[in-house]
Amino acid sequence: MPFTVPLKDFEFLLDHVVGFDRVQATDMFAEATPDTTRAILTEAGRLCEDVLAPLQRAGDLHPARLENGVVRTSPGFAEGFRAIAEGGWTGISADPEYGGMGLPMALTTAVNDMMSAACLSLQLNPLMSQGQIEALEHHASEEIKALYLPKLIAGEWCGTMNLTEPQAGSDVGALRTKAEPKGDGTYAISGQKIYISWGDNDFSENVCHLVLARLPDAAPGTRGISLFMVPKLIPDADGTPGARNSLRVVSLEHKMGLHGSPTAVMEYDGATGWMVGAPNKGMAAMFTMMNNARLGVGVQGIGAAEGAYQHALAYARDRKQGRTPVSGSGAIIEHADVRRMLARMKAEVFAIRGIALMNAVAIDMARATGAEDWAARAALLTPITKAHGTDMGIEVANMGVQVHGGMGYIEETGAAQFLRDVRVTAIYEGTNGIQAMDLVGRKMMDGGEAAFRLLQEVEDAAEAARAALPDLAGPVWDAAETLREATEWLVAQDAPARNAGAVPYLRAFARVLGAHVHLQAAARGADARRALAAVFITRILPEHVSLLAEARAGEAALYALSDDDLAA
Amino acid sequence: MPFTVPLKDFEFLLDHVVGFDRVQATDMFAEATPDTTRAILTEAGRLCEDVLAPLQRAGDLHPARLENGVVRTSPGFAEGFRAIAEGGWTGISADPEYGGMGLPMALTTAVNDMMSAACLSLQLNPLMSQGQIEALEHHASEEIKALYLPKLIAGEWCGTMNLTEPQAGSDVGALRTKAEPKGDGTYAISGQKIYISWGDNDFSENVCHLVLARLPDAAPGTRGISLFMVPKLIPDADGTPGARNSLRVVSLEHKMGLHGSPTAVMEYDGATGWMVGAPNKGMAAMFTMMNNARLGVGVQGIGAAEGAYQHALAYARDRKQGRTPVSGSGAIIEHADVRRMLARMKAEVFAIRGIALMNAVAIDMARATGAEDWAARAALLTPITKAHGTDMGIEVANMGVQVHGGMGYIEETGAAQFLRDVRVTAIYEGTNGIQAMDLVGRKMMDGGEAAFRLLQEVEDAAEAARAALPDLAGPVWDAAETLREATEWLVAQDAPARNAGAVPYLRAFARVLGAHVHLQAAARGADARRALAAVFITRILPEHVSLLAEARAGEAALYALSDDDLAA
Repeated sequence: MPFTVPLKDFEFLLDHVVGFDRVQATDMFAEATPDTTRAILTEAGRLCEDVLAPLQRAGDLHPARLENGVVRTSPGFAEGFRAIAEGGWTGISADPEYGGMGLPMALTTAVNDMMSAACLSLQLNPLMSQGQIEALEHHASEEIKALYLPKLIAGEWCGTMNLTEPQAGSDVGALRTKAEPKGDGTYAISGQKIYISWGDNDFSENVCHLVLARLPDAAPGTRGISLFMVPKLIPDADGTPGARNSLRVVSLEHKMGLHGSPTAVMEYDGATGWMVGAPNKGMAAMFTMMNNARLGVGVQGIGAAEGAYQHALAYARDRKQGRTPVSGSGAIIEHADVRRMLARMKAEVFAIRGIALMNAVAIDMARATGAEDWAARAALLTPITKAHGTDMGIEVANMGVQVHGGMGYIEETGAAQFLRDVRVTAIYEGTNGIQAMDLVGRKMMDGGEAAFRLLQEVEDAAEAARAALPDLAGPVWDAAETLREATEWLVAQDAPARNAGAVPYLRAFARVLGAHVHLQAAARGADARRALAAVFITRILPEHVSLLAEARAGEAALYALSDDDLAA
Repeated sequence: MPFTVPLKDFEFLLDHVVGFDRVQATDMFAEATPDTTRAILTEAGRLCEDVLAPLQRAGDLHPARLENGVVRTSPGFAEGFRAIAEGGWTGISADPEYGGMGLPMALTTAVNDMMSAACLSLQLNPLMSQGQIEALEHHASEEIKALYLPKLIAGEWCGTMNLTEPQAGSDVGALRTKAEPKGDGTYAISGQKIYISWGDNDFSENVCHLVLARLPDAAPGTRGISLFMVPKLIPDADGTPGARNSLRVVSLEHKMGLHGSPTAVMEYDGATGWMVGAPNKGMAAMFTMMNNARLGVGVQGIGAAEGAYQHALAYARDRKQGRTPVSGSGAIIEHADVRRMLARMKAEVFAIRGIALMNAVAIDMARATGAEDWAARAALLTPITKAHGTDMGIEVANMGVQVHGGMGYIEETGAAQFLRDVRVTAIYEGTNGIQAMDLVGRKMMDGGEAAFRLLQEVEDAAEAARAALPDLAGPVWDAAETLREATEWLVAQDAPARNAGAVPYLRAFARVLGAHVHLQAAARGADARRALAAVFITRILPEHVSLLAEARAGEAALYALSDDDLAA
């Protein structure tokens, strides 16, 4: 379906809202000049509009399928993948030593966003590779890096993540896949992995699986897990793929959406693997990959929301029904409730896109400066971007269906596909409940320090905007203060009370940050930015009040209901 | 999938919350004794559990299809339909003179709820017939009643509603289908109708279409619309179906869900029709049918939510992941966030089910007593039940997917089907935006009198409960008061401001009514009712604050964004 990359929004957010100039001022990212930034966004945008967006429907209508053990991908996906690979879009932020562009994560984030809007199911493929690339850069031996990174970065090979097993989902520590030393430095990997996104394809020269497994006599739980590189075809020292490894796709899942992305059950039967990182330290290495992927998945939600928004907007401008209040053209965009939905969709996308770019800037600043504060901010923002980005993906796509009325329920329209496709993003890469528990647990182990520092910035910015924009700045300052108080309450609670309020707390945090993004945009942008900010701040931000009431409700009422009460 | 009818909830709500005893005390419904009520619910429950629930998956996996002009329904649906027909479940509230049971709408509502939970796509068929029966009872000639009602009530024939045309959706007045008098008292109907639910089937002896069309030289808009009965097979005077009428199913839609229900494009090519009601008064007649159907569609959402809840609950009790806080069994139901979702799902279903039954009781009281106040209450509650029932259907089904984690996205599990199936209920029978505008427009033309009367009852009940349940009653009273103030503001506004806040206003109203339902249950029920009420009142009711902030935000901010701003 037609798709226009929102280039101006990306540039405005980078230039005026999220402080990308600080990234550009570092030595590490000196090459990310305004000219380069613009060139990257423009060029990637062209790919998305011309090559990827036309593939979106084909992925749904002609799902990837398994034929005699071979995965056949959707029509056009091979060409789409090659265009992504040849543009170097998998390796925007990868190490130049291995062929990457070495550019900031903020640019990868913008490009992933637009690729997700254009064709989510195909974009998931390079996203998986990006995560693998980062894990290898941080944890792999020089030998493995030299062998795999150039191929992955060039998009000749693809990467996957293999964590989940039937009995080990959110509880990764329950996994059973075995890794037995073969005596030659390699390991024999045996076990079954499920939900492997892009577990195989028919367009890349090789597929590289990063697999979590247990060494013999490893400790139970997460402390006994190691990470292994298990390629589909075993490469020789020059990187030429050779013998077939002992692994196979057992089946592909029949999913609610994202049909273009093959979700595989993988069987490893003594497959040859190479350890990545230290023995029993696999979870640490996997966390590198997961943090990257969590930001990336949040951005998938944002992209899908953008696509759904554009699709609904085009329909609402075109579709005529009844007398309309503005021009009388009859276009349903003029009806108050349709306009409410569209304005809300646009305001949501802008807000969470700003949050994701703040998140990426924090990652970039942490890398470039080594400052703990930036690392803590990135860690704090990642679960928010992941959970709220994907929640907004679902909510905006759901509103997109509603804007279409009856046509929204008819598959030919394409509105329903956005909703079906994006639904999984709230589940994979750690469910949104897990993200929220990460936020109120691990990310508050500093006593809330990183959160308080961020809220101070929100309040300072609101204070600075108060003179020019009193109606907008006041509510943002108040909301930040309310969130600060809730955070003080939260860090004083034990785990059950925190967890019982984790999801609404995360969402309230996202509401305050979203309002902050909009307020900065209103302070620095034209009238339309101010109007959109007013929509967010007057209509959406008030949600934080009820969310924080729920966040502070504690766990007692939930456990006062027994399992049998729930079933009665 | 296994399904257990929540008999105790139905009985408790009828007996202790919604005042069904007042209905039972009327002359008209004297036969609805406690024994009869119990027998009806029990017997219908058996049908749902044993016959209908097993059909749910087949409807999704084997969609209705069009073969050489004939609609072939999903496997088992013919038998399921016959079981519904033979039990008399289509005509619970229909006129005994024509074979109906003459029982209150409250019982129809309870039975429709359980049938929707068991198999939504099949249940839509008798729901359409129920609407048609009510329209005919009120508006048709004695001749048409005598010919059609016995067949429809017995489930030998099925009924459909034909409103929408490609250019006439929410704007029904734009319809173009023509009705030309043939000189013998009949009319030749010509035109295309779309989105005709159960437009045809292969199991009923006849299909009776109620079709909106225009007489020659009729006024434009809704004042020039008449209603016609257009049967698929033209019956003789004894009701034996004879010659094929000039109408056909052109195609069936490929929908996001509800695959078991054939959604037809219908072509009428000079088909013979009989007028129902007076010339140019078709909209009035159709409104009878729509009001019935709107309550019915809201109840579809509630049923789907019940089904999704039971499905998720069973999974959460069975699925083991990690260390769990209560018994340590590992079942994910013990994790705080899973428990939060399940408790919320159950609390939502109970609340909106109570609202729907209040709505039905108001309809019954209006019929039995003729009192305007009851009619006004029914009219006020209908858009709330429709929009909030279906919104909760979607939200609860969406949480059901989330409770399942990765399995929720895999179609074999069945969780996704609830979400895909129920999604249309927020669209058809008047989108939920249209419902909200009906609430703040037509239903407030009394200056809010019906709303204030209802809120007074909510406040009185809260006041009465305050001594025994201060922590629960206080917030309910406060919320009702806040809603009263918002309502006073609302009725003083013009249409654009009302419409811009219509959707959040409706939802806030539903939150207050839901809390009222729970508070009554807590006051009259056992500990588990009180615990569930606490979940609703402490965690969900606070939403009304932010909803009413949005409801009162006015339209200015929405229209400050131009169409081009939205597209920029």
